[in-house]
Amino acid sequence: MDIMNDEFYMSLALDMAERAQGQTGINPVVGCVVVKDGAVIGLGTHLQRGTGHAEVHALNMAAGKAQGSTAYVTLEPCSHYGKTPPCSQRLIDEGVARVVVACEDPNPQVAGRGIQMLREAGIDVEVGLLRSRALRLNEKFIKYILTKQPFVTLKSASTLDGKLATKTGDSKWISNGQAREIVHTLRHRHQGIMVGVNTVIADNPSLTTRMEVPGLHPIRIVIDSSLRIPLESAVVTDGQAPTIVVTTAAADPAHKAALEAAGVTVVVSGAGPRVDLQAAMVALGEMEISSILLEGGGTLNGSMLESGLVDRVVLFFAPKIVGGGSQAAGTFEFPGVELMKDAVMLEGLEVEVLGDNVCISGTPVR
Amino acid sequence: MDIMNDEFYMSLALDMAERAQGQTGINPVVGCVVVKDGAVIGLGTHLQRGTGHAEVHALNMAAGKAQGSTAYVTLEPCSHYGKTPPCSQRLIDEGVARVVVACEDPNPQVAGRGIQMLREAGIDVEVGLLRSRALRLNEKFIKYILTKQPFVTLKSASTLDGKLATKTGDSKWISNGQAREIVHTLRHRHQGIMVGVNTVIADNPSLTTRMEVPGLHPIRIVIDSSLRIPLESAVVTDGQAPTIVVTTAAADPAHKAALEAAGVTVVVSGAGPRVDLQAAMVALGEMEISSILLEGGGTLNGSMLESGLVDRVVLFFAPKIVGGGSQAAGTFEFPGVELMKDAVMLEGLEVEVLGDNVCISGTPVR
Repeated sequence: MDIMNDEFYMSLALDMAERAQGQTGINPVVGCVVVKDGAVIGLGTHLQRGTGHAEVHALNMAAGKAQGSTAYVTLEPCSHYGKTPPCSQRLIDEGVARVVVACEDPNPQVAGRGIQMLREAGIDVEVGLLRSRALRLNEKFIKYILTKQPFVTLKSASTLDGKLATKTGDSKWISNGQAREIVHTLRHRHQGIMVGVNTVIADNPSLTTRMEVPGLHPIRIVIDSSLRIPLESAVVTDGQAPTIVVTTAAADPAHKAALEAAGVTVVVSGAGPRVDLQAAMVALGEMEISSILLEGGGTLNGSMLESGLVDRVVLFFAPKIVGGGSQAAGTFEFPGVELMKDAVMLEGLEVEVLGDNVCISGTPVR
Repeated sequence: MDIMNDEFYMSLALDMAERAQGQTGINPVVGCVVVKDGAVIGLGTHLQRGTGHAEVHALNMAAGKAQGSTAYVTLEPCSHYGKTPPCSQRLIDEGVARVVVACEDPNPQVAGRGIQMLREAGIDVEVGLLRSRALRLNEKFIKYILTKQPFVTLKSASTLDGKLATKTGDSKWISNGQAREIVHTLRHRHQGIMVGVNTVIADNPSLTTRMEVPGLHPIRIVIDSSLRIPLESAVVTDGQAPTIVVTTAAADPAHKAALEAAGVTVVVSGAGPRVDLQAAMVALGEMEISSILLEGGGTLNGSMLESGLVDRVVLFFAPKIVGGGSQAAGTFEFPGVELMKDAVMLEGLEVEVLGDNVCISGTPVR
């Protein structure tokens, strides 16, 4: 049963923000609920970069009746003129009496100034209600705004012995339908999806988002050191989403030109022979890609993890054992650590049982 | 809150049986609750092979007052003169009016005859209440009574990339304290514990049961094709539990004699070069070992699984990733299947979160 209190309204604001994940680009997701005289008078969520912020939508709905109201906002209202005027000013102008904020905005252009503006105007401001949920919701935005590099979620589906395929390379299918539906939701919620060129050559995937309801396709990013990607690949030809191929200066210029002629953006990262993944993340960040779902093979997964470029690991395990030793590809192929105490640890572990599959996720810490 | 009904009493009988797991040898665990005029008048559980059955203890406690009572028994009462007289006869003699049985006894010497005896004496008998829990509780007994081979539980503790150790062989420690406490409970509940000789050489383990409360040590069983086990190994010298070494006819007779002189039982299984695991299970069954906890390395685990000798798989995962490719030992090292659809599947999957470890268990099916 519900208990009506501050949390009751803030959790609705967070629910609204959550539903908009994936559609705000490099912007955060934000929800706002305005309450007055015991009733909701306005709801809003930020929908898309360059359009109204959550507070603006909610106050518009309140239609001038927000005098003396309480506004619940999942992220500190902005204090600067960006693509829209500052929301803190709008809250002040509307005569809102109290603002409950879930978490501060880490954006250096805000970083407390929004809260300060409200307080200086005599508004009662409370900060920190459901903070951890709010921070988690915007972990991609926070990483990007602070580092200008994309937040990377590594996803894999493996057997219980950590294999992505049998010794013959067969991998159809490992995970169950429920796990695959979650993966497509993850695709919707990331701006980019990254694979190695071997995946493109072996499976010719479209890497699009396919769900019961329509979703947004991520930008396809292929790591391809020697530029071996076939010009007839689905990601080159199908036009369903932009495609970026990341390669090295050692790649064949003719193949590069042919890809570019086909509409592919080719990013050169490093002199070769392998793509400089650190530099690639900087380049992708400069292209305003703030989040990437990594659906790599074992080698790309291992390299990204070892380079400290993975921010979240999401592992689906199917109840299967296939053996095959080193002939069967594992989820993480990298030289590895010498001592167990030096293992990459997953912190903040979450475990979800999905029928006969299990999802284990967490934040990698070295 | 409790609801008093047949299940209320049967679940107590099952709880009592459960607590005796590990101490009844090749016998089943059984609980019995006798209820009359709205009150419990007798409780009993089978404690040890060769001693009284659950019904006998419960009726003894009832002290002649069981006339017209209801007896809840987790396993069909026996009908034959074994080490004790038949319990069905005792229930009849005491004038019990109704018997609720969780599951039939698969023992060919009983197999419905106990229930038949009761019914022929005019007792109201109901069968099947909480049957699946009762069958699970005696899965080791059931396998052994029907096949004369031990029930094998494969246990491993690995990283999320399926490694038992790093590339340098370091494995201290993978799992957390809670997982290790469960492992020692599993040791108590199996008559034997099986490892490969490489584990003995590398770690010199005692393979005993160490818990907050005292437990029973399993018989140590070492698979050692070339009889390389050192005479100074803890399992040879410490006298904490019997030790069986399983080897081949190709093994050195002098080393065999020395082990036997040290009190070790040496079982020869096959001509060599590798131990014939199928024959070994038959031999261990003949020695009245009805259950084995397999704590093998990857090769022994893989061989046992591939040979169809594993009845239950219990995998502990720690939130660690160590890489190391084929240099780092995996949980299951075996040639493996060619197609994903031919994977060994775990059925009846159970997932338990133990702090930051996850336990995934099930029944392997090929």
